[in-house]
Amino acid sequence: MAYETLGWDIDDGMLMLTLNRPAKMNAFTVQMCDELADAYARASRDDAVKAIVVTGAGKVFCAGMDLSVDGNVFGLDETLPSPTLADMTERLHEPEIERGLRDTGGKVALAMYDCLKPIVGAVNGVAVGIGSTMLLPMDFRLASTSARFGFVFGRIGITMEACSSWFLPRIVGLEQALEWCYRADIFDAEEALAKNLVRSLHPPETLLADAVAFARGLVAGRSAVGIALTRQMLMRNHAARHPIEAHRIESLAVFHAQGGDGSEGVRAFREKRAPDFTSRASAMPPFYPWDAA
Amino acid sequence: MAYETLGWDIDDGMLMLTLNRPAKMNAFTVQMCDELADAYARASRDDAVKAIVVTGAGKVFCAGMDLSVDGNVFGLDETLPSPTLADMTERLHEPEIERGLRDTGGKVALAMYDCLKPIVGAVNGVAVGIGSTMLLPMDFRLASTSARFGFVFGRIGITMEACSSWFLPRIVGLEQALEWCYRADIFDAEEALAKNLVRSLHPPETLLADAVAFARGLVAGRSAVGIALTRQMLMRNHAARHPIEAHRIESLAVFHAQGGDGSEGVRAFREKRAPDFTSRASAMPPFYPWDAA
Amino acid sequence: MAYETLGWDIDDGMLMLTLNRPAKMNAFTVQMCDELADAYARASRDDAVKAIVVTGAGKVFCAGMDLSVDGNVFGLDETLPSPTLADMTERLHEPEIERGLRDTGGKVALAMYDCLKPIVGAVNGVAVGIGSTMLLPMDFRLASTSARFGFVFGRIGITMEACSSWFLPRIVGLEQALEWCYRADIFDAEEALAKNLVRSLHPPETLLADAVAFARGLVAGRSAVGIALTRQMLMRNHAARHPIEAHRIESLAVFHAQGGDGSEGVRAFREKRAPDFTSRASAMPPFYPWDAA
Repeated sequence: MAYETLGWDIDDGMLMLTLNRPAKMNAFTVQMCDELADAYARASRDDAVKAIVVTGAGKVFCAGMDLSVDGNVFGLDETLPSPTLADMTERLHEPEIERGLRDTGGKVALAMYDCLKPIVGAVNGVAVGIGSTMLLPMDFRLASTSARFGFVFGRIGITMEACSSWFLPRIVGLEQALEWCYRADIFDAEEALAKNLVRSLHPPETLLADAVAFARGLVAGRSAVGIALTRQMLMRNHAARHPIEAHRIESLAVFHAQGGDGSEGVRAFREKRAPDFTSRASAMPPFYPWDAA
Repeated sequence: MAYETLGWDIDDGMLMLTLNRPAKMNAFTVQMCDELADAYARASRDDAVKAIVVTGAGKVFCAGMDLSVDGNVFGLDETLPSPTLADMTERLHEPEIERGLRDTGGKVALAMYDCLKPIVGAVNGVAVGIGSTMLLPMDFRLASTSARFGFVFGRIGITMEACSSWFLPRIVGLEQALEWCYRADIFDAEEALAKNLVRSLHPPETLLADAVAFARGLVAGRSAVGIALTRQMLMRNHAARHPIEAHRIESLAVFHAQGGDGSEGVRAFREKRAPDFTSRASAMPPFYPWDAA
Repeated sequence: MAYETLGWDIDDGMLMLTLNRPAKMNAFTVQMCDELADAYARASRDDAVKAIVVTGAGKVFCAGMDLSVDGNVFGLDETLPSPTLADMTERLHEPEIERGLRDTGGKVALAMYDCLKPIVGAVNGVAVGIGSTMLLPMDFRLASTSARFGFVFGRIGITMEACSSWFLPRIVGLEQALEWCYRADIFDAEEALAKNLVRSLHPPETLLADAVAFARGLVAGRSAVGIALTRQMLMRNHAARHPIEAHRIESLAVFHAQGGDGSEGVRAFREKRAPDFTSRASAMPPFYPWDAA
């Protein structure tokens, strides 16, 4: 799949994924949805990718859904007869539902949730609507001091999307999530930092280099399967009803590692040398994925 | 239903709900439980109500359960033969359980959880026991600098109620929730602010006006169904096991909006004018409620 | 069961549980796993124990898994043929799985989760690997200014354990949990405090006395069953899908208390005297435990 709305560039293990419609302020379209979902899945399979940095071309990160397109701006099929929760449960992958009903931002968010590589946002400017909600399934959000955010859905009479009713309160708390969604206004980088939406602020001129260095530091010298499992275990297990659900997966993960990178890690530790890990995220252990929803 | 323990006053979309037993420091009774549960349901149905501000008459918010009443102070039927979890699951709405076993604070908390309008607390003074736990299902807690709080159940040999074992750790974290419940003491507004129990502190003389202005700012110019869905989506979806549960609801919400307030919102945005939203929370879309527990 | 790796000392209701392999920096072994799991269960049954303080002998808390032991350092059976999630679900208590597959840290964490007494950590020095993750199911972590922490599993090619993929993000947030696990480095007490991993820092020479005084303050004058239920209700109910799950348990807890310590508490309150609570955690009400996973 060749991307028209995205840049895809790998440099020494770091994938730079760039929202690339600068003439349209990188506004989100159905095509960008499909390309982003494809790109995150492709990054999972591609062993050359160790971590992902996401940014926007030009001075904006993403100005939200492109409301200037012809037809249904949400990419939905208005002729669907009164869809129900059962349609979203039992018929999720039928073309009529997949194309006509499913929220496009949500498809991207679920692809990010499933991703096997750490995702670092480099929020280089305005990020509103889907531009803000697509940041939430990332592992980390680094932002330029000139970044702006906004869960502005209420301004146009719609509601939050991209699974943000799940992600946002888990990151900033239920009260702050309610406040930003009711307010539906644009807020600055300082507020985003103070309320823990972003990890750190950076000068515009160093943001990208800082984000790449940060991402590289997370994965350098690490087991690729270990990184992938760490991400998936935290994303999935923390929302479990009971800690025994985590215990089940963790036991399998440690058992699997001791036949591979874990043995090498212990040997290297005893021999006081750097380990030589060889696992590949393209060959995950058989217990993964453990809850294919 | 005429209220004897509550004030109900609507002014330009703002419902002022007042705990109104000032001679008893607004202490909570079985009657107040019934009236509060009724009031939150009524506010959901009444399109004249856009947001709710809750406060106490006089200098106190709520001094807790009224321990001076005759009979069982908890409003329970002591003669019930050894009730079980099955009683609370399978027989929840049978009169014997409904009246004799169900925690009164929990009935109020569940009515607040289900409410379709934002709820802003204006904590004007002492709020202990149920006075503190009834604050937790609110969207926001604004407090007077003279407010006092306390999860004091341990002082009288009982345990936390009003679904606070679910709400409190979600607001302030598990460790702080454990500490306050073990300590069971009264703490001041500064501690409540420092630990994120309240959103902001206000001088006693401006608290009520500040709370009304804040509540009004959340809903002014917004879609009534959009506000109701935003509240319900965040309250319910953030506790889901997997983000796809949020995706299902969000997809239905966006689909539904694009046939109503969403279309008007996009038109108004393109025409650079204020939108004219017409939806009513008394006519919620058919997919709501999506988990009637 | 006599402990060889632990100290067990009760003084006026306070159990001091000491990791006691100082010549090995209190490194964790399969034997220590078994003894810790036994000790937490024993503390639940022993009415002489009101609260638990956990610390390490000497200058270290716990240096992690003992990688110097012979055989499989993780205590696993490498000959198990490709274990699956079904093994961890359906065969959890079969000896082959119990001994050969289950993560040892997770067995300790689940015993702590089930414990009926508050657990206060007195982290007196280095706490890495399982030394850090065994802190997470505690109610509170107090630390010496000289303490050091580290979720270092990635250094040796394995992944987080001891149910920490459930506990850690609930304590410090998903983003911070991801960062520490990817970094896999050692960090100091100041960072642990700033990120809410620990409750407070203490001079090394007063840490233990401070922790005992803090623990004593949590339980002095309290109902033993009330404390046990408070801990279990917060640990279990906060992770529920819907607040009605908390309502069910809370209703049973208040109903049960009003026939025991709750009646005494209300009488004492009316008579303006200190209550005389008589319940024992060795005789929990019949609705406990309510989700035996």
